[in-house]
Parts: sequence; C-alpha cells; structure tokens
Amino acid sequence: MRVLGVDPGLTRCGIGVVEGVAGRPLTMIGVGVVRTPSDADLGHRLVAVEQGIEQWLDEHRPEYVAVERVFSQHNVRTVMGTAQASAVAILCASRRGIPVALHTPSEVKAAVTGSGRADKAQVGAMVTRLLRLAAPPKPADAADALALAICHIWRAPAQNRLQQAVALHAPRAPRTPPVPKGRTT
Amino acid sequence: MRVLGVDPGLTRCGIGVVEGVAGRPLTMIGVGVVRTPSDADLGHRLVAVEQGIEQWLDEHRPEYVAVERVFSQHNVRTVMGTAQASAVAILCASRRGIPVALHTPSEVKAAVTGSGRADKAQVGAMVTRLLRLAAPPKPADAADALALAICHIWRAPAQNRLQQAVALHAPRAPRTPPVPKGRTT
Repeated sequence: MRVLGVDPGLTRCGIGVVEGVAGRPLTMIGVGVVRTPSDADLGHRLVAVEQGIEQWLDEHRPEYVAVERVFSQHNVRTVMGTAQASAVAILCASRRGIPVALHTPSEVKAAVTGSGRADKAQVGAMVTRLLRLAAPPKPADAADALALAICHIWRAPAQNRLQQAVALHAPRAPRTPPVPKGRTT
Repeated sequence: MRVLGVDPGLTRCGIGVVEGVAGRPLTMIGVGVVRTPSDADLGHRLVAVEQGIEQWLDEHRPEYVAVERVFSQHNVRTVMGTAQASAVAILCASRRGIPVALHTPSEVKAAVTGSGRADKAQVGAMVTRLLRLAAPPKPADAADALALAICHIWRAPAQNRLQQAVALHAPRAPRTPPVPKGRTT
C-alpha cells in the first residue's frame, strides 16, 4: 500500500510518501515540503499548493492520501491557512478518486510513538527509526507528513474493512447536485 | 464591473452575480446556491463545490470574485467547513486569474445597510431594494452572496487604485515555488 501523507499548511505543506503494510518494515518513497511565499496573496498561495500537490500525486501515484485533521482550537491566524491548505489537498486527491483519510495529530503521535502527547522530536526520532533513515527529515512538517502516512498504513486494515462495508451499501461517488441559478424576478 | 459574490459553506454555498458601478443603479445577473449532501464525505463535497463554482464562473465570466472572509471565532464545527469551501472558491477564481477580494461580514453589512451589526432580515431587505427585486432572495446565503458583490462594487474604486499602485511595484503572479522532493538519505 502506497500512502501520501500531507501535513497541511500555506507556508510549509509537508508531504511524505510511504509504502508498506502493517507488520512489515516500511519504505520511504519520497519526502519534501511545498512552500508558498507568505507575502503572496491567498489565491496565489492556494494555486501554488494545488500545483505542488498535483506534482506529487503525478509522480508517486499513491493509493491513499492521509491528511491531518484540522481543529480550530489552535492559533486563530494559523488555523485558517491550515484548513484552507487541507481543503486543497483533499480536493486534489478526491478529484482523482483517491480515498482520503483524516487522522488527528494525537492519533498520529499515538500510532508512531505510543503516546498521543509525544513532542515533535519524539515523532521525528520514531519516523527516522521506522523508515530506517540516516537522520530525521527536516523540517518537522516533512517528518509529520511521513508520520501521517505511517499512521494510515497501520490503522488502514480496520478502516478499509469499514469503508468496504459502507461502499457495498452506498454509491461511491455522490452525484453533483444541480446548481440552481437564473434571475429571480 | 461584474462581480460574483460567494458566501462560502459546504451545505449551502451562496452565489450572487451583480453588475454595475458605484453611484449607479445595480443589476442582478444571477443568484443561487451550490448545495452538497451533508452525509457525503468531505472530499466529495469539496469536489461538488468546485464543480458548482466552475459552472458559475463559466456561465457568468465575472471580472472580480468577492468572498466572505472567514473568522475562526464562530462555531468550531461550522467554521472549518466554511474555511474549506472558501478555499475552493478562492482557488477556482485565482486559477483563472480573476482577482479575489475578501470582505468581512461587518464590512458587507455596513456597505449595504449602513450598520456593521445589521441582522439577516435587514441585509435581505436592502439587497432586495438595491437590486430592485420583487422579493428577498432565498435562502439567506444567496442574499448574502449578492450583498458581498454589492459591497465589492461600492468599495472597489479605492481598492482598485491601491491594487494598481501595488501592481506597478511588484510582479502580479508569484512564481510557483519549486517542490523539493526525493529520498532523504
């Protein structure tokens, strides 16, 4: 199973691609960061995030995309950019029919370190060990994206059985709703 | 000047197209709502919002898109969907090179009613009067989208002079940043 993890952000959007199955050693396929200039306007930044993610999807053809679930309890300024970058990542994957899974930061930390409250250094150390890397991926957003992908591979067996059961009883892609429009008189 | 206003939302995304210039009677070109089923998954909803907005842009070819600026002070659950739907609207416009303006709810209310604290009924009544409609557009999201477009037309002269001044001193479209990737060893 090949999973592309996304740690969403406008300034740095971490991307990590991992291949493997639960219970076997995992392989890192690629890691990096899509950056957009903080002085550009929001529209141009979202277009740049879209182009960056499209390039990663084109190059690595993941079977699943795992995106960090954004909560609005965090810093007010940051969370909006994070939510908007995550929307672009989810949109890019869904347009291609790639299933998208959302995992919370504590699910990811618990998956790779055993504790939902682990700090960034601990996550980086475990990602380095689990993927047999020479050094922790930098910046932290890149390591977090790999952790998301690992989390998805380990949690996937249960989730996939659930999705398959749901898919048996519902059409997979909902129809686009009609767009009511026209002049109101 | 033709402006497409977007009141972003996943369940109901209000769209309103208004044509005119400040100081002259305005004309409503179209109004409606892009809806997505609340039981569909987030990815399919974002794809449906994108398709709906693309249809509106194709049909009405606005020169500007005005989107409500989202704040995270509101309801925690709602605000994430609103932020994500607004990201899709901003992305669709920016991909086409259409300038996007963000206006806060109180700017919009102040523009059309004279008070930043006006309620929905008051906004609906003023939109109806300013566009010489027979009845207030329903649902409220559609009326809000028209109010956004009106707000942009009225505020645009000052904003456009500012944008033109900025454009003279900076390249208009930022280059897409390179996507660093590859195996870290």
